[in-house]
Amino acid sequence: MNDERHPSAASAAGEVQTRVNNRIIGFSDGVFAITITLLVLTIDVPSNLASDEVNGFLWETLPQVVIYAASFVVIGTFWVRHHRMFDMCRAVDGRILILNLVFLGFVSLLPFPSDLLIFDDQSTSAVIAFSTVAGAATLCEVGLWRHLRRHRELLLPDIPEERIASLTTWRFWSLGVFIISILVSLFFPRIAVLMLLALLPLYELVHHRHYHRHDRTLYLLRDDQ
Amino acid sequence: MNDERHPSAASAAGEVQTRVNNRIIGFSDGVFAITITLLVLTIDVPSNLASDEVNGFLWETLPQVVIYAASFVVIGTFWVRHHRMFDMCRAVDGRILILNLVFLGFVSLLPFPSDLLIFDDQSTSAVIAFSTVAGAATLCEVGLWRHLRRHRELLLPDIPEERIASLTTWRFWSLGVFIISILVSLFFPRIAVLMLLALLPLYELVHHRHYHRHDRTLYLLRDDQ
Amino acid sequence: MNDERHPSAASAAGEVQTRVNNRIIGFSDGVFAITITLLVLTIDVPSNLASDEVNGFLWETLPQVVIYAASFVVIGTFWVRHHRMFDMCRAVDGRILILNLVFLGFVSLLPFPSDLLIFDDQSTSAVIAFSTVAGAATLCEVGLWRHLRRHRELLLPDIPEERIASLTTWRFWSLGVFIISILVSLFFPRIAVLMLLALLPLYELVHHRHYHRHDRTLYLLRDDQ
Amino acid sequence: MNDERHPSAASAAGEVQTRVNNRIIGFSDGVFAITITLLVLTIDVPSNLASDEVNGFLWETLPQVVIYAASFVVIGTFWVRHHRMFDMCRAVDGRILILNLVFLGFVSLLPFPSDLLIFDDQSTSAVIAFSTVAGAATLCEVGLWRHLRRHRELLLPDIPEERIASLTTWRFWSLGVFIISILVSLFFPRIAVLMLLALLPLYELVHHRHYHRHDRTLYLLRDDQ
Repeated sequence: MNDERHPSAASAAGEVQTRVNNRIIGFSDGVFAITITLLVLTIDVPSNLASDEVNGFLWETLPQVVIYAASFVVIGTFWVRHHRMFDMCRAVDGRILILNLVFLGFVSLLPFPSDLLIFDDQSTSAVIAFSTVAGAATLCEVGLWRHLRRHRELLLPDIPEERIASLTTWRFWSLGVFIISILVSLFFPRIAVLMLLALLPLYELVHHRHYHRHDRTLYLLRDDQ
Repeated sequence: MNDERHPSAASAAGEVQTRVNNRIIGFSDGVFAITITLLVLTIDVPSNLASDEVNGFLWETLPQVVIYAASFVVIGTFWVRHHRMFDMCRAVDGRILILNLVFLGFVSLLPFPSDLLIFDDQSTSAVIAFSTVAGAATLCEVGLWRHLRRHRELLLPDIPEERIASLTTWRFWSLGVFIISILVSLFFPRIAVLMLLALLPLYELVHHRHYHRHDRTLYLLRDDQ
Repeated sequence: MNDERHPSAASAAGEVQTRVNNRIIGFSDGVFAITITLLVLTIDVPSNLASDEVNGFLWETLPQVVIYAASFVVIGTFWVRHHRMFDMCRAVDGRILILNLVFLGFVSLLPFPSDLLIFDDQSTSAVIAFSTVAGAATLCEVGLWRHLRRHRELLLPDIPEERIASLTTWRFWSLGVFIISILVSLFFPRIAVLMLLALLPLYELVHHRHYHRHDRTLYLLRDDQ
Repeated sequence: MNDERHPSAASAAGEVQTRVNNRIIGFSDGVFAITITLLVLTIDVPSNLASDEVNGFLWETLPQVVIYAASFVVIGTFWVRHHRMFDMCRAVDGRILILNLVFLGFVSLLPFPSDLLIFDDQSTSAVIAFSTVAGAATLCEVGLWRHLRRHRELLLPDIPEERIASLTTWRFWSLGVFIISILVSLFFPRIAVLMLLALLPLYELVHHRHYHRHDRTLYLLRDDQ
């Protein structure tokens, strides 16, 4: 830390410069935090409610709160995955910066199709829109994993090769959750939202149980302990 | 810090991996900051106010500003508590990551029932909705404390066992503030909001005074001083 | 950093515990960033504008952009001041945590009176509302400075006593900017907004020039350089 | 890091004080993250859509999603540039703090003209408004680069002089993208938006390829690796 290694004096051709910089983490956390908090604005509140109308309004709005929960679960799952991915990284390069930005673009678009989801009178189109945006974000994740797998120098030295390979595969198959939701929404639109709510975290849980049955990760909050 | 201890080479079964990672703090602070700032959007401003209507409008809106203050106090109290909890932590594990996410889900939902609270013409339902969401967030806190108590390795070594136990109990009883508010709102809905405004910080103050009469905590802003 | 000093083993009565914790900075920056960005939402955009109406609308909205600039300048000034205050701090205690939270409460309320300010048809009430909220935030700052002056252990060791005293006085007198704006708004409401826009940064500039004529502060972005 | 060098005991006239402080990074990331996420609110969603109207509404809204993408690309490009600029910095001074604040003021104003951009029925005025605000932000960037070039002590020691000079020039010429968009919008308003979408990242890509053909920068996420 106190050495002259970084910033390394590298301007010769073909050399790799290293710098200490974790803005990508702070920026991503900011976008996730805002997106997840903006979801509450998808619940419309009329500005002039009389006190005796509030009760009825609350019952009517309950399905919207379910949608809020479903969207929260989806974006929360994306955050937990993002956390796990960058937790394995030692460094990022320019391409990851760009790919991550595109990924965040799809994540922060999610409140829009989420606003279209209506529980009582669910349309297939809204589920397709939500699943397409969430699927595009998942594809970016797959791209990030592929890039990480090809550039071992970005990963921490103790991450085994096969773990990255299996994670890339798992991420790819998690697209299936969205495809299944679209298929279900063609026949039972109402159930499709509940499936998104249940399937995505379930998928993650199964994956996590499968790989982390025996070990446990502690995230130290500070360096010096 | 410069040793090879973290990331420890742990992939054997049953071993505990440690990594330095405090994204949970930054992400939580982001969600708290946005939720507390979105509260101001619950004050509705008509887009076309003539200059002579502004005065009357301001007096009409004053109760809404009181609601803003009450919600700000509730969410601010949650932040101070969250700050104190993670201040005692040395590390977090996967379960805390998830529990904290659910906790933040309830916190960021708070602006919705807060928007329903109307001071002049207060309905019991709105107070119940607000107290239920705030109570659910409190339950998550109790869950977090219970998990911390059972996993001593997550806590800093100088935190005495009985302090965690008493904090868990205090958090649990703070649910009473919301239950009392609901009971009061059945008969005097207007007063219930003021109670939330006053009772929750009072409760925290009493607790804090009780335990920290004699000591004082300084939070160093930087490592090297 | 690698010693056993912090967290110091302090649970005896009257002892001072120290912990490394800079969440107050991250949380405050979050609230400032969101408040300053929410200001753009005070510019109302009709949802269905024909292409030939956009031009006229833009000219009509120009005064609102001036209001946006004025509010941005006020909140930006608060941030720069906050930056300078905590830059002198070595640590914070519980009272600063609470006072800072109240301060942030007033700062994040500012977009509401800012939304009431209308350049063309300015009402005195709106200027009074804005100045009152901004003045209350300034009072919190004065309170923070007073607390810092009385607790020298919170400040960095190289900050001279008289500098804190003079800063407290200057902050107190900056309340005058808001009082003058209110007085001016009684007679010339339109000019009062421009005064806020001009006076507050001017006041800071004069103060800064007065004290920092000869020295210059560099803020290092990383520890190790 | 453990020495007594910073905070250096500097209160004599003409001396340079140094402090470790990277709040400017966190605050800027916050403003960028919120601005980029608020863009999604520029897509208007009617509150009462029947399930059979959602499909038609989605097709109608598609152009708005293109606008969202264009604005996202512009703000994202600003973030990547900001990231690269401060990545070369060793420290910031008071003037950079202020210039950066003005820059962020223009960036966070961008969602307003972005809201005026309508793909189907594009007006020249909206493109001019968007390009003016984005151009003003670019001018601030040029100002920041000029200041950095004149104060070598703010830059990392391994940054060659000519690189800063060329970057200043490139930033200046990137104003041309906005000028070309305005010119095109006079005749083909619809195409102008697509040009913004395509030209700005293309310009950055060409610049990046030109200078970084042979080297590659790794951003280490943590200090100790």
